[in-house]
Amino acid sequence: MIEACICTIGDEILIGQIVDTNSAYISRELNKLGVKVSSIISIGDNIQEIINTLEDITEKYPIVITTGGLGPTKDDITKNALLKLTRSDEMYLNNEQLGVIKDICKKRGIELSDLNRDQALVPKSCSVLINRKGTAPGMFFKISSKETLLFSLPGVPYEMESLVPQVCELIVNNLKTEQITHKTIVTFGVAESMLATILNDWESSLPPQIRLAYLPNPAIGIRLRMSVYGGDKSESTALINRYSSELYGILGDIIYGESDDTLESTLFKTLIDEGKTLSVAESCTGGRISSILTSKSGSSGIFKGGAVVYSNESKISILGVNSKIIESYGAVSKECAEEMAIGAREVFKTDYAISATGVAGPTGGTPEKPVGTIWIAVAGEGFVVSKKNIFAGDRERNIIRFSSEALNYLRLVLKISKV
Amino acid sequence: MIEACICTIGDEILIGQIVDTNSAYISRELNKLGVKVSSIISIGDNIQEIINTLEDITEKYPIVITTGGLGPTKDDITKNALLKLTRSDEMYLNNEQLGVIKDICKKRGIELSDLNRDQALVPKSCSVLINRKGTAPGMFFKISSKETLLFSLPGVPYEMESLVPQVCELIVNNLKTEQITHKTIVTFGVAESMLATILNDWESSLPPQIRLAYLPNPAIGIRLRMSVYGGDKSESTALINRYSSELYGILGDIIYGESDDTLESTLFKTLIDEGKTLSVAESCTGGRISSILTSKSGSSGIFKGGAVVYSNESKISILGVNSKIIESYGAVSKECAEEMAIGAREVFKTDYAISATGVAGPTGGTPEKPVGTIWIAVAGEGFVVSKKNIFAGDRERNIIRFSSEALNYLRLVLKISKV
Repeated sequence: MIEACICTIGDEILIGQIVDTNSAYISRELNKLGVKVSSIISIGDNIQEIINTLEDITEKYPIVITTGGLGPTKDDITKNALLKLTRSDEMYLNNEQLGVIKDICKKRGIELSDLNRDQALVPKSCSVLINRKGTAPGMFFKISSKETLLFSLPGVPYEMESLVPQVCELIVNNLKTEQITHKTIVTFGVAESMLATILNDWESSLPPQIRLAYLPNPAIGIRLRMSVYGGDKSESTALINRYSSELYGILGDIIYGESDDTLESTLFKTLIDEGKTLSVAESCTGGRISSILTSKSGSSGIFKGGAVVYSNESKISILGVNSKIIESYGAVSKECAEEMAIGAREVFKTDYAISATGVAGPTGGTPEKPVGTIWIAVAGEGFVVSKKNIFAGDRERNIIRFSSEALNYLRLVLKISKV
Repeated sequence: MIEACICTIGDEILIGQIVDTNSAYISRELNKLGVKVSSIISIGDNIQEIINTLEDITEKYPIVITTGGLGPTKDDITKNALLKLTRSDEMYLNNEQLGVIKDICKKRGIELSDLNRDQALVPKSCSVLINRKGTAPGMFFKISSKETLLFSLPGVPYEMESLVPQVCELIVNNLKTEQITHKTIVTFGVAESMLATILNDWESSLPPQIRLAYLPNPAIGIRLRMSVYGGDKSESTALINRYSSELYGILGDIIYGESDDTLESTLFKTLIDEGKTLSVAESCTGGRISSILTSKSGSSGIFKGGAVVYSNESKISILGVNSKIIESYGAVSKECAEEMAIGAREVFKTDYAISATGVAGPTGGTPEKPVGTIWIAVAGEGFVVSKKNIFAGDRERNIIRFSSEALNYLRLVLKISKV
């Protein structure tokens, strides 16, 4: 596999002011091409350190991607380092990027400053990757002595992300990357160790060409990624499809999607198909379920609203939960979860409603209802169903797990109600 | 300044499956001691690569901290690398850590496996940092030939975090770190460039001993950190206090707290002091404001609940917004925001209510109400006030900014209402 190194530049990473999310994004995208990231290095805004590090890694790796170290106030450091490194001697004003910079200044209602204009200055020896989302252009160098591909990208995540497709295309065109065939199956509700046990025989039967990776994520579930490197594309695809259809047979409803599907995207697809609407009643999850459902644009046709009923009084007054139920069974109970879902469905006038009530921790647990206990209910036309789970985790992780568990429960209920 | 290098170990980082948040945490903590992180390196679970990298960086830096690469299935790789690196020849079973492991297994209701027991195996040459939150212990080595302090910490963030105080203590005891005095003032509502302009004269007047850092964060605002390295502790403190009190004079209500204060922690403090309760009505923020207010345990005495009224119907039915107001002014308007706040205050029976209604984007903008427009209102006993902001950002960033802006608006209203 072709190896790559990512180098993130910026004092703000080294003092812990920002978390580097760019590297994970780039790693995932390169991985899809069959490129393996072997090392990620973060260094500060120091010209000599940038030069030394880049000299070292462009020597070791055929692909080097830097992010950050560009921007109106520190542009010159990284660009001068790149000039020295690539033995270029001149910069020129790239008119296309300058046009973008002028547009951005105009939109923000600010004058074009020298600092901003100079962001369009680039070494003559590079190919420019025009940044349409921001002012700092990406740059692509071929370091001829070493045959290394060197990319310099801006550090702002959505600007960087917008340039990655060009980076991938340049890598594929310049290096003979192996043909790579992937298929990702997304599961929810079974822990990694249990999933590995269930899939033990199937895994043993996989031909050596297929590599399998377990990619767990508390919000999404476990992604199972099958990859075949090299070989004929259509043969590899056929091979992977054969084994993935076996997977569907073994795992059934544990599988909820493929590729980048999430619980919420899958749910929305089903609800749109059926023309149904949804509301939410949350206690311990405190608004996270609603947040997830509204994180993508365009959910307003489906999601009508949610009630964050953190206190018992609000469970009663907003959702019409019977106060005697809370007195008799407590707020964390099957009965309360069901009344919350029924109440949300009525007040928001939706086809379905989900509710969640539990103990996220660290306080509030009892021997009968320890921290990590969650009751979830789903109400629909003429029915309400509920279930209990107990998780082990800290507050943050419990809130994530509770929320995803609630979305998954609705998914399963919708599936069963169709049968 | 003493320099350090962080090395995160694990294939899961290099394939982009997880984002490395540990490095930022450790960097911030070391920074407080006056230790500067000069480089962060991520490498895979490969014994030779671990040895090579650690040999290289323990040569270059007086402090090296590794995280990850421990855990039941890959323990042996990192530990064997550490054995080779430190020329140790033996491991022993640490009884204290074994006790923790046994407790954890018991609590999870699982048998103690060999894999789990072996996590208590540590090189004889290390000092053990007992991990009470998980099974993998931290380790501390003094590499005598180079006088380097080498720490190996588990990769799970809350386990790693629980060991950092011990790491800091060992650093202070073993290296003559400079006396360092910090003070952090937290501001909200003024952009970095504007803040720099306001503070220009004050910054110029700072004595050379005081270093100033701007640390912006979209949810928290801008932290201004003053640091004095070396010198007498009480003199440094007095010096910093003199200049920070000037800062209070210049910035006034732009300042909302110190150190690790957040908008929500500051708000809760005020509301607890006054014995007041709060509710929320959210449209475009989709539950984020409620999520923030419930992210810490113990908020239930103050925060009674929130309504996520994503549709116009739910604004009307849940909060009693007059349908004519939405028809005449639209849902993103002063009038609608104010009715939402008044409605939330009534249905949740709280002393105060905040509302937010806007256009998070990317769709839904108009020339009059472009993407990034937010109306915020605060309702209290006998009053309702509101304000508009327009931000430039993508959906995710807009939702963050809108939510923090709403919390900050309540903070300011509470401040003024006290006068």
